[in-house]
Amino acid sequence: MARFLKNFPPGPLDYYRKRASFDWKQMKLFIDTEEITEYEHNVYRELEKYPEYNVNNLTPRSLDERRHLALKQALAYRTIELLSLQSLISDLKRPAASTRIMMQYFPDSTIKYSVTDRLFTSAIVNMGSDRHLHFVSDAEEGKATVVMPGGMRTTATYDVRNKHFILHSPDFEAAKCWTGGLGQCSTHAIVYAKLLLKGVDYGLHAFIVPVRDAKTLLPYPGLKIGDMGEKIGLNGLDNGFVQFNNYKLPRENLLNKFGDVTEDGEYVTPIKDPNKRHGAALGSLSGGRVNIACICEAMGTKAITIAVRYAAIRKQFGPDPHEEIPILEYQTHQYRLLPYLAAVYVLRIFNTFFNEAYFKFSLDNILGNNKDILPDLGVEIHAISSASKPLAGWIMKDAIQECREACGGHGYLKASNIGEIRNDHDANLTYEGENYVLIQQTSNWLLKLWILVLDKNKISTPLHSADFLTDAGHILRQKFAATTTNELCQLESIIPIYQWLVCHLLQMTHNKIESLISSGNSSFWAKNNSQVFYAKSLATVFIQHFFLKQMIEKISEADDLSVKNVLQKICLLYGLWSLDKHVGILYQGGYAHGPDASILIQESILKLCADLKDEAVSLVDAVAAPDFIVNSVLGASDGMVYKHLESAIYSSPYGLERPTWWRDVVNCNGDIKNKL
Amino acid sequence: MARFLKNFPPGPLDYYRKRASFDWKQMKLFIDTEEITEYEHNVYRELEKYPEYNVNNLTPRSLDERRHLALKQALAYRTIELLSLQSLISDLKRPAASTRIMMQYFPDSTIKYSVTDRLFTSAIVNMGSDRHLHFVSDAEEGKATVVMPGGMRTTATYDVRNKHFILHSPDFEAAKCWTGGLGQCSTHAIVYAKLLLKGVDYGLHAFIVPVRDAKTLLPYPGLKIGDMGEKIGLNGLDNGFVQFNNYKLPRENLLNKFGDVTEDGEYVTPIKDPNKRHGAALGSLSGGRVNIACICEAMGTKAITIAVRYAAIRKQFGPDPHEEIPILEYQTHQYRLLPYLAAVYVLRIFNTFFNEAYFKFSLDNILGNNKDILPDLGVEIHAISSASKPLAGWIMKDAIQECREACGGHGYLKASNIGEIRNDHDANLTYEGENYVLIQQTSNWLLKLWILVLDKNKISTPLHSADFLTDAGHILRQKFAATTTNELCQLESIIPIYQWLVCHLLQMTHNKIESLISSGNSSFWAKNNSQVFYAKSLATVFIQHFFLKQMIEKISEADDLSVKNVLQKICLLYGLWSLDKHVGILYQGGYAHGPDASILIQESILKLCADLKDEAVSLVDAVAAPDFIVNSVLGASDGMVYKHLESAIYSSPYGLERPTWWRDVVNCNGDIKNKL
Repeated sequence: MARFLKNFPPGPLDYYRKRASFDWKQMKLFIDTEEITEYEHNVYRELEKYPEYNVNNLTPRSLDERRHLALKQALAYRTIELLSLQSLISDLKRPAASTRIMMQYFPDSTIKYSVTDRLFTSAIVNMGSDRHLHFVSDAEEGKATVVMPGGMRTTATYDVRNKHFILHSPDFEAAKCWTGGLGQCSTHAIVYAKLLLKGVDYGLHAFIVPVRDAKTLLPYPGLKIGDMGEKIGLNGLDNGFVQFNNYKLPRENLLNKFGDVTEDGEYVTPIKDPNKRHGAALGSLSGGRVNIACICEAMGTKAITIAVRYAAIRKQFGPDPHEEIPILEYQTHQYRLLPYLAAVYVLRIFNTFFNEAYFKFSLDNILGNNKDILPDLGVEIHAISSASKPLAGWIMKDAIQECREACGGHGYLKASNIGEIRNDHDANLTYEGENYVLIQQTSNWLLKLWILVLDKNKISTPLHSADFLTDAGHILRQKFAATTTNELCQLESIIPIYQWLVCHLLQMTHNKIESLISSGNSSFWAKNNSQVFYAKSLATVFIQHFFLKQMIEKISEADDLSVKNVLQKICLLYGLWSLDKHVGILYQGGYAHGPDASILIQESILKLCADLKDEAVSLVDAVAAPDFIVNSVLGASDGMVYKHLESAIYSSPYGLERPTWWRDVVNCNGDIKNKL
Repeated sequence: MARFLKNFPPGPLDYYRKRASFDWKQMKLFIDTEEITEYEHNVYRELEKYPEYNVNNLTPRSLDERRHLALKQALAYRTIELLSLQSLISDLKRPAASTRIMMQYFPDSTIKYSVTDRLFTSAIVNMGSDRHLHFVSDAEEGKATVVMPGGMRTTATYDVRNKHFILHSPDFEAAKCWTGGLGQCSTHAIVYAKLLLKGVDYGLHAFIVPVRDAKTLLPYPGLKIGDMGEKIGLNGLDNGFVQFNNYKLPRENLLNKFGDVTEDGEYVTPIKDPNKRHGAALGSLSGGRVNIACICEAMGTKAITIAVRYAAIRKQFGPDPHEEIPILEYQTHQYRLLPYLAAVYVLRIFNTFFNEAYFKFSLDNILGNNKDILPDLGVEIHAISSASKPLAGWIMKDAIQECREACGGHGYLKASNIGEIRNDHDANLTYEGENYVLIQQTSNWLLKLWILVLDKNKISTPLHSADFLTDAGHILRQKFAATTTNELCQLESIIPIYQWLVCHLLQMTHNKIESLISSGNSSFWAKNNSQVFYAKSLATVFIQHFFLKQMIEKISEADDLSVKNVLQKICLLYGLWSLDKHVGILYQGGYAHGPDASILIQESILKLCADLKDEAVSLVDAVAAPDFIVNSVLGASDGMVYKHLESAIYSSPYGLERPTWWRDVVNCNGDIKNKL
């Protein structure tokens, strides 16, 4: 047993801890590996040493104080060896593990570090050439930030006479908005602009653009740069905008790996097979999304940790008027929380797999290994991440909100921390690709595969996410088979249902688009008008199937039978609970008839909830961050909710003091006498 | 045409305003009445005169500043004649109208006013007697607040020798938490405590308890009182707690309308027919919930105003690469927003009806009118409000969140205002009765009626919300009848489906409880274990049916055909979109067979969305608050999104300035040279 997993202090959570059928330490070591558990332990110990991190994220701070703290934390981040790229590469499970820790701890400074240090370097490496390497060495001391592609109307016109580009944004609407780190701190930015050569538009290209004087941090003339202002969350991060007014830029600052401009203003490109390049590039661009799915899981983990522990402590009237029972005993409360706890597990296992796969792909890409499969793998990573990022975002959004409500009034306290989690998580839903647009990438990929299926081709992709489509004909002839909850509550029963859903929705979406086109719609509108109820549902069931597939593979590796047993229930709960939301499709498509399917699914969900309620606290223990990171009066591992609540309230400056403006209250009260 | 409805300035929203099939002013005058439209106009004009209100709710403020501002606003509120009880009573549509205005403007100070002034007085009037009237006259100058029943473990033991009560809370867990206004300002509180006389427990009774010295605002000895601290939202409101330590209270301070204690410690009660009293009391206690459903609608209205206007302005790539189209043109975006716009209309019409019915009931109750129907009416108001409050809260929670996401990255800006709306709305989900517990009141009432139905009784309730149950036998034999979207898109088609859903779920829930009891469960656990998929769904479809019923009645009064036509579509969209979430029940219960029902419902929803996209901006215009209340850079009525965005960013202190701690950034950059 690893020495870095300590027992929890005895306390009111023992009631449930003793009822769990499995050992939470065995669970943790199994799902995360022993190496990663030790790694996490070491990171926690390391963080304790940094004064920048030994602060409470709930302390009231002005926007300026938050920004300053985030800068100091981002600078500290750089110096933590365990979080360096070298450390992460040494075990490809570390990237997800470090994301889980740091995004639960201080998400704003973590993102600030990531966009100013990590993304900048990778953009230069991926898109630049030797002539840009000096930026990388400078960047290792950290002074730049990457601009995400935003408004596309900035132009870079090459001035042949003066041998430089002229960057220009026609109006504020064309300004690059939202770039993390650009608001106050960065000296350079990578800007996507439309390349214009002798009046010809060559499309978007990336440029490295100095924006502020590194000595004074004042902006250069010819551009307007500034901060977006206060946001709903992540306020330590300085999101910024930049708008160019005929700003001159040396020719060399074009990132020229895939296309360059000669001194005379001719366009040259080394790309010979654009398709091959396309796949690998798509994969590389998926990094943000792969990471965000993990961020979503991390934030949901923090919320569910709080809500489950609180549900185990908080009591309500029960059948006996003299004895209250924990709200976790109520069916409604189990149904509200446990499917999200299951989703956290499903996502943790998926993200561990997918982050590792992505980082291996990226290394291979840089090192030139496995060149044969990289294009297909890149395309598949792109398709999977285009659905896993939105789904993880949406599930965890609902999870966090349900956790907030399930904590009742006390969940509305800032000291519960759930409000902060929600506000920070919210950004995941709209950055790095608008979710509803993004998820179309997945359905588009599946629709392309469907053409191959219709032509009787065998489908085989590097991550095997869609191989089952080969058998679509057979799958589409199947029917809902279970007749008892026991039959339904088997991992082997769930997968065929999801496979049918994917095949059915693929067929429906394909036919819908075809029929819209044949009735005169352009392919643009045919696709757009097949999203709701078709393409979006398709991408959703596809990724849910893949989540379940990864979970089942992981479960098959479990040696500890009690761990295996509870993970099976978690997998089934997530699978059936998600299925219940698609039950109309089962009937619509003729997969199910009569009341049984729907009732069996619902009864199975409630049975699994009841089975898992005694496991819930230990399940949380196995994935929860330490108390100093969870940082909630409701969610501490000792379960002493009311002690923490009382001390938080009493120790706040507002707790027991009258306000400085108390006379404004008294004066309005007039000369009321003491009525006692 | 009322002179108080001004045309909007010309601008980019004209594109859609010109496409609407109806006149937004006619719509507004129809749904709100001419009198209320004028009333709103007068309130807006009045608010402009108050410096306390002429402030921006988005300006960064410390918790202390927010509290101080809210106090000043709550004091100003008292002096606004149009918002006084007298004014509200003069037209019983005014309560809902004033809630809509003030809860969109400054919800925290509005609640502060309401709980310190309004609720206090009504509690004394409803529960006290002549001996408490001096508190009312004092309260008219405002110095007290009502404690909501929270922790139930505080006791009031009568000390016969000293003729006073001794209030005691055994520990912090038993402290009364969350009372609005108690945190910093109030001098008196109404406390529910368990009355103990000579060792006998007489249950909860209300006491008026002085808690702070009105001259110094310092707390009295024998109690601990203070503030709950910072919250997720509503931070101007000082929610507080109080904990008693053998605190002495005069005998007269028991609110004794329904039970009193003699000097000798004997319990006396004037109640002869507790059932009759019970019904009226239930109705009276519904006031908070009736109001909250309206608050939810108000907050949702503000969010949808922002998101729809932004969707009409914000453009994305379209079929032609050189021309972008408004995102409102996309099917996905229509589906994301328009059902919530429909829900806002449905709730507005329901709340107008229900607030008026509630206030009429309250006046009758106080004046002694209509005594015959008041008990039944009270029970029905309780049952309806126990479902309308949770449903309104949940729908508008989803609406606000969807609006936030539909505004993309810019929705994440504080200046969009959607984050504030979400954080403030969040309280609606957990105060005044936990939603999942509350909604059981509705299903319990329906289950009692079901027993009557099974005994072949005619059901007839004062508001006619459940009269159709009389025909349950007939209703349960019906099947899904529509065969085309045109047939389905009729108001007459929707109602029978919902009636079938209510009857079917009533039967299912009743049978489920019976079967759990006959298999040995106590009635407590039988009820608890019939909530998910049964009782909760039952209460949901019941209240949705009642929402639709009220809407259809209102539509039938419309003279303007274009108004009538668009309201029908709104009603259908809300009804079918909600129905789509119950489609599994239609199949499970044998009401629908084969693919048609599900596909027709979905096709109808998309058709209605497409029909309504050109109406959406004008529909918003008819319900939107003025710009100074909406207060969003994305949602102004002139549609100048980028102008407002630009000026908000440039005018913020963070816009273009470097931070005071810029040297911390520069020093870390080392001696990098200017690369340009």
